[in-house]
Amino acid sequence: MIISMRLHATREEIDSVCERIQESGYKVHTIQGEERVVIGAVGVGDVTACLESLQAMPGVENAVRISAPYKFVSREFQPQRSRIRVNGIEIGGAELVVMAGPCSVESEAQIMETAEAVARLGGRILRGGAFKPRTSPYDFQGLELEGLKLLRKAKAATGLAIITEVMSDGDVELIAEYADILQIGARNMQNFALLKSLGRAQRPILLKRGISSTIKELLMSAEYIVAHGNPNVILCERGIRTFETETRNTCDLSAVPVLNALTHLPVVVDPSHAAGKRSLVPPLARAAVAIGADGLLVEVHPSPEKAFSDGAQSLTIPQFGAMMRDLAPYIELWKASREAA
Amino acid sequence: MIISMRLHATREEIDSVCERIQESGYKVHTIQGEERVVIGAVGVGDVTACLESLQAMPGVENAVRISAPYKFVSREFQPQRSRIRVNGIEIGGAELVVMAGPCSVESEAQIMETAEAVARLGGRILRGGAFKPRTSPYDFQGLELEGLKLLRKAKAATGLAIITEVMSDGDVELIAEYADILQIGARNMQNFALLKSLGRAQRPILLKRGISSTIKELLMSAEYIVAHGNPNVILCERGIRTFETETRNTCDLSAVPVLNALTHLPVVVDPSHAAGKRSLVPPLARAAVAIGADGLLVEVHPSPEKAFSDGAQSLTIPQFGAMMRDLAPYIELWKASREAA
Amino acid sequence: MIISMRLHATREEIDSVCERIQESGYKVHTIQGEERVVIGAVGVGDVTACLESLQAMPGVENAVRISAPYKFVSREFQPQRSRIRVNGIEIGGAELVVMAGPCSVESEAQIMETAEAVARLGGRILRGGAFKPRTSPYDFQGLELEGLKLLRKAKAATGLAIITEVMSDGDVELIAEYADILQIGARNMQNFALLKSLGRAQRPILLKRGISSTIKELLMSAEYIVAHGNPNVILCERGIRTFETETRNTCDLSAVPVLNALTHLPVVVDPSHAAGKRSLVPPLARAAVAIGADGLLVEVHPSPEKAFSDGAQSLTIPQFGAMMRDLAPYIELWKASREAA
Amino acid sequence: MIISMRLHATREEIDSVCERIQESGYKVHTIQGEERVVIGAVGVGDVTACLESLQAMPGVENAVRISAPYKFVSREFQPQRSRIRVNGIEIGGAELVVMAGPCSVESEAQIMETAEAVARLGGRILRGGAFKPRTSPYDFQGLELEGLKLLRKAKAATGLAIITEVMSDGDVELIAEYADILQIGARNMQNFALLKSLGRAQRPILLKRGISSTIKELLMSAEYIVAHGNPNVILCERGIRTFETETRNTCDLSAVPVLNALTHLPVVVDPSHAAGKRSLVPPLARAAVAIGADGLLVEVHPSPEKAFSDGAQSLTIPQFGAMMRDLAPYIELWKASREAA
Repeated sequence: MIISMRLHATREEIDSVCERIQESGYKVHTIQGEERVVIGAVGVGDVTACLESLQAMPGVENAVRISAPYKFVSREFQPQRSRIRVNGIEIGGAELVVMAGPCSVESEAQIMETAEAVARLGGRILRGGAFKPRTSPYDFQGLELEGLKLLRKAKAATGLAIITEVMSDGDVELIAEYADILQIGARNMQNFALLKSLGRAQRPILLKRGISSTIKELLMSAEYIVAHGNPNVILCERGIRTFETETRNTCDLSAVPVLNALTHLPVVVDPSHAAGKRSLVPPLARAAVAIGADGLLVEVHPSPEKAFSDGAQSLTIPQFGAMMRDLAPYIELWKASREAA
Repeated sequence: MIISMRLHATREEIDSVCERIQESGYKVHTIQGEERVVIGAVGVGDVTACLESLQAMPGVENAVRISAPYKFVSREFQPQRSRIRVNGIEIGGAELVVMAGPCSVESEAQIMETAEAVARLGGRILRGGAFKPRTSPYDFQGLELEGLKLLRKAKAATGLAIITEVMSDGDVELIAEYADILQIGARNMQNFALLKSLGRAQRPILLKRGISSTIKELLMSAEYIVAHGNPNVILCERGIRTFETETRNTCDLSAVPVLNALTHLPVVVDPSHAAGKRSLVPPLARAAVAIGADGLLVEVHPSPEKAFSDGAQSLTIPQFGAMMRDLAPYIELWKASREAA
Repeated sequence: MIISMRLHATREEIDSVCERIQESGYKVHTIQGEERVVIGAVGVGDVTACLESLQAMPGVENAVRISAPYKFVSREFQPQRSRIRVNGIEIGGAELVVMAGPCSVESEAQIMETAEAVARLGGRILRGGAFKPRTSPYDFQGLELEGLKLLRKAKAATGLAIITEVMSDGDVELIAEYADILQIGARNMQNFALLKSLGRAQRPILLKRGISSTIKELLMSAEYIVAHGNPNVILCERGIRTFETETRNTCDLSAVPVLNALTHLPVVVDPSHAAGKRSLVPPLARAAVAIGADGLLVEVHPSPEKAFSDGAQSLTIPQFGAMMRDLAPYIELWKASREAA
Repeated sequence: MIISMRLHATREEIDSVCERIQESGYKVHTIQGEERVVIGAVGVGDVTACLESLQAMPGVENAVRISAPYKFVSREFQPQRSRIRVNGIEIGGAELVVMAGPCSVESEAQIMETAEAVARLGGRILRGGAFKPRTSPYDFQGLELEGLKLLRKAKAATGLAIITEVMSDGDVELIAEYADILQIGARNMQNFALLKSLGRAQRPILLKRGISSTIKELLMSAEYIVAHGNPNVILCERGIRTFETETRNTCDLSAVPVLNALTHLPVVVDPSHAAGKRSLVPPLARAAVAIGADGLLVEVHPSPEKAFSDGAQSLTIPQFGAMMRDLAPYIELWKASREAA
């Protein structure tokens, strides 16, 4: 920690700060600047409580931590990139993994038709919501258990792995029986009760960044899962909330290289939720591959104009096929750069 | 709904849109503008799914709903302001209610000293966290059940009502045994599993606005609770996330009159979390009273520099006393304007 | 400056950083932490260039400045609050100053009727735009010189001081002939050519905060004006851009106490532009007075529904009168607290 | 325009609205909905003033315009993409144009070395600031005329076209003598006095998006330039201000396809300012090419650690060379897709 004292901080204020630092287990280094005193706290101690109490002390201008607040997810802790294996696929490895499917599982016909197309056109994982987080209590809330069973059926028919969302710590066990990857939605990124229960789950987790969460907060939420026992976390950039209204959210693609520098965990991009408009999905997907994402999460629906949710951002099956063909040379370049790395 | 067609939308595209609207149960009104066709959908139907699918149809520029997406919480549904009774106090009524206490319950001595001071200095409700949402898994997570028992003890000693946070639908019943009001934190405002379970709780709910939630989303989350059976919801503005870094969050005080126009539910302000700095709490509290909030939620701690959490924004007991004295004439003006209304 | 080195920074990297710091005129203090090296740069030197180049050097994690980047506007430089005198009024002194008038000067009848009402109802300064910044080139751009002449006429008739906007460094001299205060709009807060020319103007400046400018950036822009020769700067909070759409902007009222701690310059609030809706102006004005603003800037128009611009947020004359009566007891409390301070 | 009336709007309120619409030159279409009345205004009239006054009228819930507020820059007005010719290069055409150079022109040696390298490594246009917008009045403000002369020298030596920033309408003529393209910085995007003067300039304009400007506002500012006589406008995405602090700004790459759908003007991306960190520039540049930008604007400096400004985000010459090699296959794909389009 580095603590900057105010311009006219008194000797007593400085001494109290130094005492508080030492009580927390740190050593004190004082720098007498031209204008003000700056104090360094060195060592290992109870950093958050110490920091907050220092910020509350008289004479303190500012107190900041220098070390990262996360550990297990840090690239300093594990320099080589994590590869997460699921159903014979490796996320974070030599293959760019495409996860695709409808926003919600709506019927057997809908999910089987989509699954078959996703498998045929190059997707490796089928997405589809059975428990749906909806802003309105009056909107379709998902088929729940029936939806999970349909996803299992689609897996049996196509061999695709299954990813689906968990919304409550009470549902983790049930959903883990049916799904290969548990998806945590943006609105639950800081549902800490849920994060703790995921630490005990036997499935990889795909953790979506909250729409107003910083990259550091995303890593802290991943740290919760890892610290509670589950090292298999995939991060997902899906757009952040900004003032711009032409897109549903603003896709923060620079988060991909930023995360790659800070963490060893794989990072995928969801261009569908980021854009909120079908026409923007293929160009954003291209950019996500070019910038080095480990995979894509894309919404596909046999008839988006009849979808129960997210119709405006879902690709039709032919559009998904066209996007996969368009992506092919970019994926080749991606592979070449992975091999070179 | 109002649907604007693109400039060069074809006859077929327009016809398909009209059909889709009628399928959803609406009547169609077409306006042939100078440049483009605009279509009104009138009646009652499945608005969200229809809207999303219209946005996905060829030739559609834009589709927006006109009616509010919430009903029970709307002031159009119930013109007179709701008054929520708890422990002999009325929130939303003739009294401005001050809720105060520490961020976390830390020990018997700490909570008893604080409760006694809050009661003596004019607070009516004691706040204190037993289950704590913390960004880092390594930070203090609350005393949990032991904390709840200490809150009960403080209530017995002072007569103050108790408000404390619930983080998981699994904890609602337990916490409702100990608390008079269940607090939902900003990070859980869209934890829909939790919101649904609160609909079945026998306690009033204080629902904090998410740091990046719109006012409309806050009302939709309240609608979840009410639609699931619990009409006693208090809304809380506690600062939103913006680019500004001088304050922890930006206190959106204009949300108070905006909410008062849209909903009958009471609205309180939490200046402590909004500001993140102790010195800003009294001026923000003054402004919150002046703008017409129904109450305040304030962090107070006997020794903020030793607090396990939120020390920098907690008032000391003497500071809380000074703030209450400073507020007194503003509260008098508040009462006069309530009586006049 | 404090420079944190990366975890595995080499001896050479650390040495290069120390050299660069010394070249810029600073002394070096090295702290060897548990995990990484932190370097303090002490003294007086070319801080911005040094900081940017340090951030560019290998092995550097982060480099931050400790001292404030502004000087003349700082409360550390001048502890007592500035009082700015104009036309017999003091802004920042013992009186809360209300500036009111239409968005645009539209006609002689309109400005004379408004000026007379503003003077009668307790306003001290007449606002009115002659040169208008409009998002669209097709919207009314102001009466320009004719508008200035009408403002002069209104001043002659009522004794009110005049505030009007300057949009280009080429217009400063002309407008200074007609206006008592030169207003700089939010969009020009970082128009540095304009700021420099205002340093040479013989009039006080009202500088509006940019809609996405931090408080620090606002102070840096004020510093430009003061450093170029004009110490008479009034700051104005007028709402910032956030994700919320119920209001035109989000009024950051906590900026008032934050600014009061950082600078000696007066701070006024413009609730009209912040809210964008007439009904929100009186409650926001009340909150602005309660939080300690030195004045208000309010839009008033004899017939808002016929206004050339900003009709939705303009008060009618009777509404302005009602607001002034409503504010009276809050202004009394404001005066009492100023006298006590 | 579409005007939604409040739920309980009276007959008189509705009639007044209809009258106001007709006075502005529009025809009225009324839709009597289940819950409320919605009014369409059809035809050609004075849209902004009418809209604002409608929003101010009693009984009006909301009034929105349907047609785009810009005309000349719209793709509906000109379907084929604009190609802007400068110095034998075409921006918006068959070649992806790289503009590169230092943030500031600092010395003859610096600019000549950079220019030579940019030309050799595949850049087509040399960037370099002579008049610098700096947040602090104490930072380097540019070499001004001397800087312009050095740019001319660099052009003579290398054949590169020159782009440099204009900050005031008073400087347009002077700078147009030396530069091939006039750059307008993000902070001046809504400096309307400057925009009008650019309408009379004989040079193409590169207009940077303001850090908190919407895409619509960017187009409106371009419309100012075009409506005042200069059709040669290049748009530039350079990052927007969000809550994220890991990057200097958030690069809104989805703005590229959004703009391509709305306007015929070319769009380039500035990854250097968006990221603020050198290491993020090559991946962002790759993504910008993949998403379909017409060009790149990149900061390059012979010794970034000695730069007067923006050192942290400037590439060294070898890094620029590596980036250009890395981009080559992406540029090939870009060309193929342009030819196919």
